[in-house]
Amino acid sequence: MKKLNIGLVGTGFMGKAHSLAYAAMPILFWPAPAIPVRKIIVSTDEKRARESAQRFGFEKYSTDIKDIISDTEIDIVDISSTNDNHSKIAVAAAQVGKHIYCEKPMARNVREAKAMYDAVKRSGVTSILGYNYRRTPAIALAKKYIEEGAIGKILNFRGTYLQDWSADPSYPLSWRFQKRIAGSGTLGDIGTHVIDLARYLVGEFLEVNAVTRTIIKNRPIQKKAFDRLGRNENPNSPISKKSKVDVEDEVSFMIKFSNNAIGSIEVSRNALGRNNFITLEIYGEKGSIYFNYERRDELKVCLASDLADKRGFKTIYLGPMHPYGKIFWPIPALGIGFSDIKTIECYEFIKAIVEQKEVSPNFEDGYKISLICESIIKSAENKKWIEIKY
Amino acid sequence: MKKLNIGLVGTGFMGKAHSLAYAAMPILFWPAPAIPVRKIIVSTDEKRARESAQRFGFEKYSTDIKDIISDTEIDIVDISSTNDNHSKIAVAAAQVGKHIYCEKPMARNVREAKAMYDAVKRSGVTSILGYNYRRTPAIALAKKYIEEGAIGKILNFRGTYLQDWSADPSYPLSWRFQKRIAGSGTLGDIGTHVIDLARYLVGEFLEVNAVTRTIIKNRPIQKKAFDRLGRNENPNSPISKKSKVDVEDEVSFMIKFSNNAIGSIEVSRNALGRNNFITLEIYGEKGSIYFNYERRDELKVCLASDLADKRGFKTIYLGPMHPYGKIFWPIPALGIGFSDIKTIECYEFIKAIVEQKEVSPNFEDGYKISLICESIIKSAENKKWIEIKY
Amino acid sequence: MKKLNIGLVGTGFMGKAHSLAYAAMPILFWPAPAIPVRKIIVSTDEKRARESAQRFGFEKYSTDIKDIISDTEIDIVDISSTNDNHSKIAVAAAQVGKHIYCEKPMARNVREAKAMYDAVKRSGVTSILGYNYRRTPAIALAKKYIEEGAIGKILNFRGTYLQDWSADPSYPLSWRFQKRIAGSGTLGDIGTHVIDLARYLVGEFLEVNAVTRTIIKNRPIQKKAFDRLGRNENPNSPISKKSKVDVEDEVSFMIKFSNNAIGSIEVSRNALGRNNFITLEIYGEKGSIYFNYERRDELKVCLASDLADKRGFKTIYLGPMHPYGKIFWPIPALGIGFSDIKTIECYEFIKAIVEQKEVSPNFEDGYKISLICESIIKSAENKKWIEIKY
Amino acid sequence: MKKLNIGLVGTGFMGKAHSLAYAAMPILFWPAPAIPVRKIIVSTDEKRARESAQRFGFEKYSTDIKDIISDTEIDIVDISSTNDNHSKIAVAAAQVGKHIYCEKPMARNVREAKAMYDAVKRSGVTSILGYNYRRTPAIALAKKYIEEGAIGKILNFRGTYLQDWSADPSYPLSWRFQKRIAGSGTLGDIGTHVIDLARYLVGEFLEVNAVTRTIIKNRPIQKKAFDRLGRNENPNSPISKKSKVDVEDEVSFMIKFSNNAIGSIEVSRNALGRNNFITLEIYGEKGSIYFNYERRDELKVCLASDLADKRGFKTIYLGPMHPYGKIFWPIPALGIGFSDIKTIECYEFIKAIVEQKEVSPNFEDGYKISLICESIIKSAENKKWIEIKY
Repeated sequence: MKKLNIGLVGTGFMGKAHSLAYAAMPILFWPAPAIPVRKIIVSTDEKRARESAQRFGFEKYSTDIKDIISDTEIDIVDISSTNDNHSKIAVAAAQVGKHIYCEKPMARNVREAKAMYDAVKRSGVTSILGYNYRRTPAIALAKKYIEEGAIGKILNFRGTYLQDWSADPSYPLSWRFQKRIAGSGTLGDIGTHVIDLARYLVGEFLEVNAVTRTIIKNRPIQKKAFDRLGRNENPNSPISKKSKVDVEDEVSFMIKFSNNAIGSIEVSRNALGRNNFITLEIYGEKGSIYFNYERRDELKVCLASDLADKRGFKTIYLGPMHPYGKIFWPIPALGIGFSDIKTIECYEFIKAIVEQKEVSPNFEDGYKISLICESIIKSAENKKWIEIKY
Repeated sequence: MKKLNIGLVGTGFMGKAHSLAYAAMPILFWPAPAIPVRKIIVSTDEKRARESAQRFGFEKYSTDIKDIISDTEIDIVDISSTNDNHSKIAVAAAQVGKHIYCEKPMARNVREAKAMYDAVKRSGVTSILGYNYRRTPAIALAKKYIEEGAIGKILNFRGTYLQDWSADPSYPLSWRFQKRIAGSGTLGDIGTHVIDLARYLVGEFLEVNAVTRTIIKNRPIQKKAFDRLGRNENPNSPISKKSKVDVEDEVSFMIKFSNNAIGSIEVSRNALGRNNFITLEIYGEKGSIYFNYERRDELKVCLASDLADKRGFKTIYLGPMHPYGKIFWPIPALGIGFSDIKTIECYEFIKAIVEQKEVSPNFEDGYKISLICESIIKSAENKKWIEIKY
Repeated sequence: MKKLNIGLVGTGFMGKAHSLAYAAMPILFWPAPAIPVRKIIVSTDEKRARESAQRFGFEKYSTDIKDIISDTEIDIVDISSTNDNHSKIAVAAAQVGKHIYCEKPMARNVREAKAMYDAVKRSGVTSILGYNYRRTPAIALAKKYIEEGAIGKILNFRGTYLQDWSADPSYPLSWRFQKRIAGSGTLGDIGTHVIDLARYLVGEFLEVNAVTRTIIKNRPIQKKAFDRLGRNENPNSPISKKSKVDVEDEVSFMIKFSNNAIGSIEVSRNALGRNNFITLEIYGEKGSIYFNYERRDELKVCLASDLADKRGFKTIYLGPMHPYGKIFWPIPALGIGFSDIKTIECYEFIKAIVEQKEVSPNFEDGYKISLICESIIKSAENKKWIEIKY
Repeated sequence: MKKLNIGLVGTGFMGKAHSLAYAAMPILFWPAPAIPVRKIIVSTDEKRARESAQRFGFEKYSTDIKDIISDTEIDIVDISSTNDNHSKIAVAAAQVGKHIYCEKPMARNVREAKAMYDAVKRSGVTSILGYNYRRTPAIALAKKYIEEGAIGKILNFRGTYLQDWSADPSYPLSWRFQKRIAGSGTLGDIGTHVIDLARYLVGEFLEVNAVTRTIIKNRPIQKKAFDRLGRNENPNSPISKKSKVDVEDEVSFMIKFSNNAIGSIEVSRNALGRNNFITLEIYGEKGSIYFNYERRDELKVCLASDLADKRGFKTIYLGPMHPYGKIFWPIPALGIGFSDIKTIECYEFIKAIVEQKEVSPNFEDGYKISLICESIIKSAENKKWIEIKY
């Protein structure tokens, strides 16, 4: 069985998730298109690199990204580090013909994204972005329904991505709140997930019109660089010096799609009680779809074709008769977790490499999402509709 | 016990609802501020007027609105007829010193609304508009929480009013689809309910930015004038001639509030599977509120002050310990229906008359909502933010 | 239009509910089978009787039940007083040929119930019991589905009626906790509602097997006789003397139905967070039904005949295309409240009188329910299955 | 870091799940108490054994269970095969001092269970049973609340485990429908999960009283021995010969617990629309808990101590501040799947071995559950309460 060697950059939240996916993929997807081999892991912190290799099952480790790029054994470069490193690693990897599995958001800005897209186009390597939510079986089922015509021509889309982990002003100024490292705030970090889902399910964006807010304008400075997403290590420590948040923590925007549908998206990190509240409502001429990631094993669908006294939203639990169903468990509702979704993403990527086919969302999609984000920010600044120039 | 004599114009959906409210109010609210007496009912169709008097419990009937206006016994003119009649009846009623209970939307346009507002200001009569949803006990509880400071400064509002009763293109061209009679489409008919709720709970609107759509552009001509909301009498009859729908059936807009909160509202009659889907999400610095009218006995609230391992949205069933609770039933969840909400509205109006106090939403509110609607339509036409000039 | 004169006994929770139903019935159900006229109301407390007449819209009042029985004008005796009065009033009313609208539970014991049933059988008057929950439109829809065969042969039934209004031990010893007045505890008061629903939807009971508990064994003595259901007037008053609760506050039992289905029912007043939590689950060979009264506008149904990748529970909002739908509002989810359900009950009763047909649940049903309850209690005492001897 | 070598018997649903757990455990739980090494896998079918070794990451394979028992390198015997093999493998493993990870149900009957329990008692090895649902973080949180006293003394328990995968009569006669192999039907297969949860959260069982049904009495004979749970491979193939189902597919029973609480459990494979519908309701003197595995990331809890106008069931999404939370993802609602729950189970087992502590549910628990099941069956046969003789 074919093997593909992985070089992973990043040992945080995403490093853990990707490692699990590599381990789980062939156990679930069998026969696997190829076996991913956890070859080398890189962190600038040597102790962390060494421990991560042991924990995440990598054969070796390094503190230098060059050890991945220059290693001819490596087939895939996995970029799971902070956003400011994506572009330079990806361009270097593409130049030496390595396939690229890059976490989202693709880059800090359109310029970086363009460079990455150009690099993979030139070299012909396979690229994928970690917009994992479209791998959720319920989203795959929604896609299937839409393609079958079950809900007809789409008229209206409504999406949210609401969280509250940084609603507390004492939550520290991690890299996610610094434009220099993250590029943007909630828009890039979580908003792009919903943009990816909207493009996947509804169609291409023509114009956007946005409002943004930075509700919490200063945050305590954090000592270490590692991602502290979702946790405030020492809430009772003497209040550290604060520094400025220079990215938005709330975005609301309207969309005109190329197929004449209209839409709206709201993204916030200040929505108390919402955790990973990705919701989609899609209204079509023949039916409607509702999805809430917090209840990800369910898809709700209403079909106009149902009898008048038996019409309503159905709650469909994903199982063996649905996309990816046979891969997992023998009955519905045993439950898909976050790591399972990453495992599906990993599978789609490896399969695309082996079959030499395109996979989506790739760096072209990422570049377009980057253009959409730039237009959203510009729209908010200029208080007007902005047409996206692809 | 004081009595107030009612003259009711309109024998459709709202005529029925108001008659029930008059009958129920003193049974529920006791001692009642005054007893409403169903004196006279008016319909241009004599047979219908006569039958409605008997059915709805009115002492007499007429085919001429003048019989209400000129009757000195009448204290309250109740305007439950089509939108094109509101302004002229209200102005006439105000001029002769009668209090006015007017169904929404207030009027077909800002000019008519202004005339009505001016008339009640001049005469000093009490006016109320039938934006009943703010009377829902769960909404009254949300208002109480907000006023107590339970959710802190409001940051974000998100509202919808989604229906599907006219999603079927064979649904006839009732007066609600004709600008000449209705003034506007979904915006005036149902969108104004959410605007009223947003003003009530969040604050005044500063600017709006909208997109509108008319998805179904032609509909079969309907023979009778009476409201056929929600029903297609003869779906299998030979397809009648169609005529143009000249009002929108879908509106999506963003809001900037005077207190710096931002918001978005979506209104549609093409949302299959949604019936009377009025939803509100309010995110504040200390908590969040969620309401869905389809489950109107419940308010969902999340408080940041709850212990970290016991934090989440609570589902609170409205009952005796909540606003209007003692008026109804001895335990929560016995259930509030549409007519109960109209009964509360009726009570608040009668109480305001007796106590000679202002009640809200009155004609001043209605005039402002009318200005907001005009700005929304203008924003969609001109594709830009419009500041509301009160 | 025919009129039927009402003599109502009882001025509490149910007196209010019935008065509303009489007022609302012809407004909603038109043409009404007959107009109920609120003639006379009786309470042993004269002040209360007088005030109730005014509030509830009755022409006269009395402190003596004989004034109803002996009044030849009265067509219907409405028994909404405490359980200990039901039997003697009902027997007297039947003897003089008056129709009887009696609140549940029918009586304190089988002996009383038998006397009532015999009396109406002898006199041929129409009787109905106030098991209103089967009038909920969603329950009427469930009945329709079952009769159509949509869910096939019923295999399994599961019902609950859970409340928490008396879970607080400081809640006073109202008549509902005294065997002498109430006959039984939760079983008669709320359990019989679920028994009525199970008989209506599933079929006749053959055998039962029960456990009962009295969790709160003593309660503060209450001064006034009136029903204090759901409210503790003076929680902070000096703790009054306590007295013994001699009825159960929790019952759990299994059922064997005559059609071979099995079932279980749980009834409790100690279920914190449950208000009027009447739930039904019905599993059949072709489909399933779920109902929760706290969300009474919804019926959930799953049909095996749905396509495999589109199968799941549908949430159906009750509206014009469903039972009683045209009577209420033009679109689904405007909302049915408790009083609407009582209004439907009132309509079915009046219609049965006018059409001289049987209505259900009548005194025969009530007598059978009484036998079932006696068997349940006996089963708990003797720790064994008891066959019901009809 | 310490290593523990695994010998796994079984290559079906559970073989896959356990393999994933071994791979994932040290990636999630770090530092891991020990690293599980996938050493050898056994299946009687050689081709399947060979392929499973490759797929599930085992170093070697065999067709003979003796190759595990006699291999002194093996620390843990993992029994994931059909129920009829559990006892003999477990006893043999215990005799040679190997720790045992055994899938549920423990055995086909009390006699087998007793032999297994005696064997581990004698040898002192660590045993665990795969009642994984108690590892669900939401259940662990429920346990924590109960132990903290948050809901007070428990009064009432209500559990269900409802499925529909075999509701279709054409579903084949797999080993799960044959007493000879499975020992019992739904009771052992899924009912024991709820019994485990009830013992874990509420307390020990004193008496039970049951009804059982076998709704589908004959099923098509299945060719292969492997578990076809949840799938009918060839629904359209010519109908094969049918054979008798000799185990129940539905059980309903009442429980008296040693702490005076009462309970009821219902287990069925004929509940159309229910997939893995494990629900728990626990009512205590100070609060209530509700859990539904189909929405396993949520725990619902109602606390009597909440303010009267802010009381209701909270929906708590499991996350870093809850049991096992830091092991998984940085924010709540990213999602726990079935394999994550098995990973937690694996961790608890390995930790217990390393720390030489008892873990639960072990073979003592399994033996008691076996006694409870025997009493349930006896109760149904004899139509009476049965006291469990531990």
